[in-house]
Amino acid sequence: MCGVFGIYGHVNAIDAAVLALRALQHRGQEAAGIAVANGVRQPKVRKGLGTVIQVFSKEVLQDLNERGPFAAIGQTRYSTKGTNTLVNAQPHWAESLQELFAIADNGDMLNLPEQKARLEKMGIDILSGNDAEIKIKTIAAEYLINRVGPLEQAIIAMSEQIQGVYSSCLLTRDKMYAFRDPHGIRPLSLGKLDTGWVVASETCAFDVINAEYIREIEPGEILIFDQNGVRSVNGMKACRKSLCIFEFIYFARPDSIIYDKLLEEARKRMGEELFREYPLEADMVIGIPDTGLPGAMGYSKASGIAYERGCIKNSYIGRSFIEPQQFMREHAVQIKLNFMERVIRGKNLVAVEDSIVRGTTSERIVQMLRQARAEKVHLLLTSPPYKRPCFYAIDTGRREELIAARMSVPEIASKLGVNTLGYLSLDGLYRAIGLERELFCDACFTGDYPIPMEHEPSKFEGE
Amino acid sequence: MCGVFGIYGHVNAIDAAVLALRALQHRGQEAAGIAVANGVRQPKVRKGLGTVIQVFSKEVLQDLNERGPFAAIGQTRYSTKGTNTLVNAQPHWAESLQELFAIADNGDMLNLPEQKARLEKMGIDILSGNDAEIKIKTIAAEYLINRVGPLEQAIIAMSEQIQGVYSSCLLTRDKMYAFRDPHGIRPLSLGKLDTGWVVASETCAFDVINAEYIREIEPGEILIFDQNGVRSVNGMKACRKSLCIFEFIYFARPDSIIYDKLLEEARKRMGEELFREYPLEADMVIGIPDTGLPGAMGYSKASGIAYERGCIKNSYIGRSFIEPQQFMREHAVQIKLNFMERVIRGKNLVAVEDSIVRGTTSERIVQMLRQARAEKVHLLLTSPPYKRPCFYAIDTGRREELIAARMSVPEIASKLGVNTLGYLSLDGLYRAIGLERELFCDACFTGDYPIPMEHEPSKFEGE
Amino acid sequence: MCGVFGIYGHVNAIDAAVLALRALQHRGQEAAGIAVANGVRQPKVRKGLGTVIQVFSKEVLQDLNERGPFAAIGQTRYSTKGTNTLVNAQPHWAESLQELFAIADNGDMLNLPEQKARLEKMGIDILSGNDAEIKIKTIAAEYLINRVGPLEQAIIAMSEQIQGVYSSCLLTRDKMYAFRDPHGIRPLSLGKLDTGWVVASETCAFDVINAEYIREIEPGEILIFDQNGVRSVNGMKACRKSLCIFEFIYFARPDSIIYDKLLEEARKRMGEELFREYPLEADMVIGIPDTGLPGAMGYSKASGIAYERGCIKNSYIGRSFIEPQQFMREHAVQIKLNFMERVIRGKNLVAVEDSIVRGTTSERIVQMLRQARAEKVHLLLTSPPYKRPCFYAIDTGRREELIAARMSVPEIASKLGVNTLGYLSLDGLYRAIGLERELFCDACFTGDYPIPMEHEPSKFEGE
Amino acid sequence: MCGVFGIYGHVNAIDAAVLALRALQHRGQEAAGIAVANGVRQPKVRKGLGTVIQVFSKEVLQDLNERGPFAAIGQTRYSTKGTNTLVNAQPHWAESLQELFAIADNGDMLNLPEQKARLEKMGIDILSGNDAEIKIKTIAAEYLINRVGPLEQAIIAMSEQIQGVYSSCLLTRDKMYAFRDPHGIRPLSLGKLDTGWVVASETCAFDVINAEYIREIEPGEILIFDQNGVRSVNGMKACRKSLCIFEFIYFARPDSIIYDKLLEEARKRMGEELFREYPLEADMVIGIPDTGLPGAMGYSKASGIAYERGCIKNSYIGRSFIEPQQFMREHAVQIKLNFMERVIRGKNLVAVEDSIVRGTTSERIVQMLRQARAEKVHLLLTSPPYKRPCFYAIDTGRREELIAARMSVPEIASKLGVNTLGYLSLDGLYRAIGLERELFCDACFTGDYPIPMEHEPSKFEGE
Repeated sequence: MCGVFGIYGHVNAIDAAVLALRALQHRGQEAAGIAVANGVRQPKVRKGLGTVIQVFSKEVLQDLNERGPFAAIGQTRYSTKGTNTLVNAQPHWAESLQELFAIADNGDMLNLPEQKARLEKMGIDILSGNDAEIKIKTIAAEYLINRVGPLEQAIIAMSEQIQGVYSSCLLTRDKMYAFRDPHGIRPLSLGKLDTGWVVASETCAFDVINAEYIREIEPGEILIFDQNGVRSVNGMKACRKSLCIFEFIYFARPDSIIYDKLLEEARKRMGEELFREYPLEADMVIGIPDTGLPGAMGYSKASGIAYERGCIKNSYIGRSFIEPQQFMREHAVQIKLNFMERVIRGKNLVAVEDSIVRGTTSERIVQMLRQARAEKVHLLLTSPPYKRPCFYAIDTGRREELIAARMSVPEIASKLGVNTLGYLSLDGLYRAIGLERELFCDACFTGDYPIPMEHEPSKFEGE
Repeated sequence: MCGVFGIYGHVNAIDAAVLALRALQHRGQEAAGIAVANGVRQPKVRKGLGTVIQVFSKEVLQDLNERGPFAAIGQTRYSTKGTNTLVNAQPHWAESLQELFAIADNGDMLNLPEQKARLEKMGIDILSGNDAEIKIKTIAAEYLINRVGPLEQAIIAMSEQIQGVYSSCLLTRDKMYAFRDPHGIRPLSLGKLDTGWVVASETCAFDVINAEYIREIEPGEILIFDQNGVRSVNGMKACRKSLCIFEFIYFARPDSIIYDKLLEEARKRMGEELFREYPLEADMVIGIPDTGLPGAMGYSKASGIAYERGCIKNSYIGRSFIEPQQFMREHAVQIKLNFMERVIRGKNLVAVEDSIVRGTTSERIVQMLRQARAEKVHLLLTSPPYKRPCFYAIDTGRREELIAARMSVPEIASKLGVNTLGYLSLDGLYRAIGLERELFCDACFTGDYPIPMEHEPSKFEGE
Repeated sequence: MCGVFGIYGHVNAIDAAVLALRALQHRGQEAAGIAVANGVRQPKVRKGLGTVIQVFSKEVLQDLNERGPFAAIGQTRYSTKGTNTLVNAQPHWAESLQELFAIADNGDMLNLPEQKARLEKMGIDILSGNDAEIKIKTIAAEYLINRVGPLEQAIIAMSEQIQGVYSSCLLTRDKMYAFRDPHGIRPLSLGKLDTGWVVASETCAFDVINAEYIREIEPGEILIFDQNGVRSVNGMKACRKSLCIFEFIYFARPDSIIYDKLLEEARKRMGEELFREYPLEADMVIGIPDTGLPGAMGYSKASGIAYERGCIKNSYIGRSFIEPQQFMREHAVQIKLNFMERVIRGKNLVAVEDSIVRGTTSERIVQMLRQARAEKVHLLLTSPPYKRPCFYAIDTGRREELIAARMSVPEIASKLGVNTLGYLSLDGLYRAIGLERELFCDACFTGDYPIPMEHEPSKFEGE
Repeated sequence: MCGVFGIYGHVNAIDAAVLALRALQHRGQEAAGIAVANGVRQPKVRKGLGTVIQVFSKEVLQDLNERGPFAAIGQTRYSTKGTNTLVNAQPHWAESLQELFAIADNGDMLNLPEQKARLEKMGIDILSGNDAEIKIKTIAAEYLINRVGPLEQAIIAMSEQIQGVYSSCLLTRDKMYAFRDPHGIRPLSLGKLDTGWVVASETCAFDVINAEYIREIEPGEILIFDQNGVRSVNGMKACRKSLCIFEFIYFARPDSIIYDKLLEEARKRMGEELFREYPLEADMVIGIPDTGLPGAMGYSKASGIAYERGCIKNSYIGRSFIEPQQFMREHAVQIKLNFMERVIRGKNLVAVEDSIVRGTTSERIVQMLRQARAEKVHLLLTSPPYKRPCFYAIDTGRREELIAARMSVPEIASKLGVNTLGYLSLDGLYRAIGLERELFCDACFTGDYPIPMEHEPSKFEGE
């Protein structure tokens, strides 16, 4: 999961990109980068480790601004499997003497080692472990060496070589391209400013710059932005739409809109569905911040049980750079979440959380609820049991690390020490969302992977 | 407003201090520092600009830990009036050949220039513009030069020279002292670990290290921690208790306890009182994150009007180091708060906020609600009109900058563009808190300053 | 003036390059850089501001070494007219998707603006103000875009477009090229190691790595180093040899050999010739360190007058980064050279210096000799009057800044305050060197520029 | 060996200190520091690792200058036995609430561990491994705790506790003190400016700022500089003068004057004495740069054999921070010294060097002379065999590392591979200097240590 943004035809392209990337910061805090173009010189790239604010100091912004750019692409990085080093930060680029193509991508690759070897055989150096470098160099190789053109044809040629996920912006000296893999696994939307166009992983990035949401970019679609405006090209092999269901459950911000649904409302309805499936009696409903909050409010609304804030989240946590010493490690969840004993003590309570992956955090949360002297703890999840690893830009670990792959629901309930453990059913989930299952990838619940794999991919540097 | 912490007699003194300061991070993000003592050598101080995580890198922690300390004091700094430079960061210290006294303080001073001149006349250099340096050097001068002893007597002597606010921890080679000015304007509480004692500005710092809350340190009280445990000394001139009312309204975390009240519950009751004073009809109640949320929930509970999250706060904002360019400045509030049009459009809504100081943020918030197409906006505040500047460790600006000092409530309502503007009454406020007015300083509402001033203090480097 | 080095076919290519560049440090201390190649991946470049030791930290060397390189080129930079910024440091490079060509160059360009415009018109971005970037991008453009090949033909094509000076090493993935402009204005020699070949601006760089000196690279010659060894290509338009005479007078180290002459010996003979032209009577001869020393020894040998060290040079001066304050500026020469009063007092002395350019340093030196109470000062120069600016990789300032362009010899003697002022004659100079004038450029003395100029070039970023 | 400087009563105190420390840079390049005083506030200290130029950036100088100081002390550090870390850099200081005493010292201590323990027992923390910190804290303890006063009495009290070497400057808020241990092992001289006074390890530091040399500070003397001028105090226990003989042979700059002798002249006479003792026949005399040069010139003068520069020293070596790899280590001497084959080949030559300590460098030099095809190599030293370790601020290693302690002269000659090996006799040395042996410490040649030791001191952090 990463955040991607592009803007074309605006005098404040860089400022808008910074604001938009900050709105997408939840999609990755490990690195950030921006490439800009002014139509005359090759795109210029600046990137660094850390958050958008940390990377884009006044000096870096001045450096980017000095060419008077009218287009920019940017990315915030969350490393799925790779190391968080500068060489892996995006945008990546491919360059010739006369051209530079930069890419900002939210994606992953299943056949990275094979494609890397193929490029190296052509004499092309691969410097990072990041799949976006492979993608942009594949496109550049098609265009510059194999003479496949215009550039959108090279993008299509790339889509035929690379098995994987991509929601991308590509910047040249004077054009911008936005495209999405044929399954549309990661989101990407189109918006409009008074002058110019924008593209973003989530619509919350449009709100912060007052851009108007136009529509989602279709799976397999390529948008081309140039001085004549924007036009759409289709040419990738068609596949069924397979948006990652976890964008609805956890990843995307509640104020974003996907498939025309506001996530805040969809998540509230998941709480309502949970009450339909688990009509418990309790003194209060609390949500585990932040993603569990709308679910808890929905459960409260459906059940009439009071919604309370039982837990306060520390807003200043950020990412810790401290080598975890024993004492600190023991308090890692505690420093994030504080369960208020005066609210919880003696209560029979429903706690709503989005999902359980490995179970360690949930176990610690239940312990803290017990320490705050909750009498009964009913833990409800707004998703079905998470049983299969994801290979599409999320790091969920190996299958054996997933608690629901190893244990039955009663076993998990017993291990966590809860009075009730309730997972939302797949049907309930789609009912809450209000859309057909056919539009989604829910392989993590069902094992029904949309991109066929011959064998489970080995560990590689990712995203 | 700053965060202060002290720990005495614990093998993980530094780790605990780091965790506790992170829990107090909301009280100041400009600088952080820790001083440690091991009973043998003089205390060692490390401090820096930025948040606790930014200052206390692995290397700094190793450096502090190498002496095997069993006691530590720390501070997170919010600069009231001074510049945010390293020289102003805390802990400050005073040193002789054989002694080093370090202080971590939440406070302010009314007679700083006079006291600075007095020390300099004695040949004592003052290096910063921070009042805590004046305080610790005054204590040291009494102890080392004027031979006032033991050290608690030197603290009392300081209290007779300094007009102002202090909730402080003081560390020597082998002892720790915690003390509070005779009015008790800023909070300071005592807690206990399995082995050792802790002191903190707020009880949320106890929760994160599993310390037991014992009691508040009394105004004018000095606690002395040494190998025999803790003992209390009183000797400062008694004054009436005057805890800052804004700790209840805004500053302190909702999961902290002051005067035996959980702030989350007090703030919810402020919302209930608001409904008693303003029984409006509306489609929904929303809170302006984060402080307005419990007030909104209280209003909802009392009124039966649905509580919704109309606004999503970006959790990754942190402090911006970007020189605000025009384009960015226009979006400064927008990047923090996103009002969801799908939730708000066409609604008659009550928005609960904690207070209005200058009015600029509130004006922007109402604009954004209108942009999200709210039909009616009723803005309710969980505090009375803020009319007078604070001189006790808060930076609220000059009197003429306070909107309620210049305009009547209807004028403010008209300027903000709201359908209703309702301030909670002073009576309603104390009813919600459940305590007598006599325990508080509410000079910002009433002009009733507890520390007599001959004249309004001029601008100086503060806290 | 810069220092250039290349090595091909040696397992310690980087270490040898560092040692050799340190031996060439006198040719430039402003920036240093190295590019390495391992035959498999594209060359990797690391460069920085400062001396070789400052730039090549352990970390940088490890980074360069990690690819197991067998070839390296490097440069130490002296900026003739440009700014000393990182973007101007060498090696410069040009890259395509499959190739990277790096250059290390000692040179300058007369038609830089025209050639820069020509490349930009082709869509090639020029990032620095350095002529070496223009050269390597011109070569790359010929090779990659105009399909001129093999690479040596592209170098020849460059020589037809660029008016100027170059003694260069060029590195590709698996080959190294060394070439010199058709006039051979800057030196470049070929040497041999047990395994592998080396190229350097001066032979002192061979001594430090025990390389055997083979021969000079001829003006207009291109050497190609690959797995089959080294071979020579000629194809540039022939011109008359025009080695810079100042390499003999001042630039090159005394332990270097050019045109088969050891410079120490040539400079001693200049002193002998000076005695033939100025047979003075005196108590002692001193040299102005360091370049004046062999001249003084030659004068002493020819005259029988005692050679003494009248002046001690501070070996630890290096480059000053201090903003010159008035007090410091007054002592700028004094901190470098200390004239010993006990040696000089009351003496009738001959002082030998290499040249006078602007006259300010010489004036200060004569003042210091007078302060040390020399009775008579006879200042002799091992070169004729310096009257015309150099456009070939030396920064001597504009013509009006050259004292000998504005004043007669008696006028200069009077301004400096010397008893005798004697310049070596052009004939005497060539007699001392033992070579024909036809082999040299002595335009600074004669105005006889080997490269025809339509007009005096305007100021541009150089070398 | 370190360089010490002090200036009192001059408006450009800091600039003068920087210039003077640069002139003393040969006495230590590992760290540098300056303390300044302005009469009003406590002295301010800035120090860092590296050379004077590296430490005193524009920012650091501005910081020091902002108080308008009229006095400064400074030091350049050469670490004898300790680590080169910032904590060991000088000036060191001791401070009370009202006072700060800073010291710049060239010295060493024999009873460091005992004195450190003594101070720590008094509650005084020792932070570094440097003897100067012990000295200044001993002085401060006498003055502040034991109430020994005025300050010069505390310095005398220090001299009674500390066995060792010190040539020091001490700075307070408004006074400067300069003092030397009772043996006067390290040099220290007094000079005068138009306004104000200066003190320096060597007189070459006076030349660079046009200060007039007045006299040497006497062993055991204390000079006090205040607004009334300078006055002298004696009170330390008298001892016989014992200036380190190696200051004459190697350490001090040739343009410095000690005991009224210009070192350049004394060293030339050592060469003349060498010819008296070793009247060899040869084709030429060369000196090993830099210290061997005047000896070679003296030998040439006495013998009539031609003096030549057979070897060129690289002026840009500085200190290497590179982790020595095998290849680099092999070329460590070679990068410093280049012996010119064209000068040396086939010659029967006398090479003059100052001394042989461990023998490794001399062995490498003889190898290089052989490589340059010298026919015969006669190596002459301007000092007797170095047989005993020094404990007075020089790091010569343990006794077993000294080649002359383990081998006879013929054995050394054979190991080095020279045709003749000649050490100057002790008598010849003192004849060359022109002073009585009684004025010197020559324990390294004779074992006659001036400061009695009960046992050879163990390794400790030094100077």
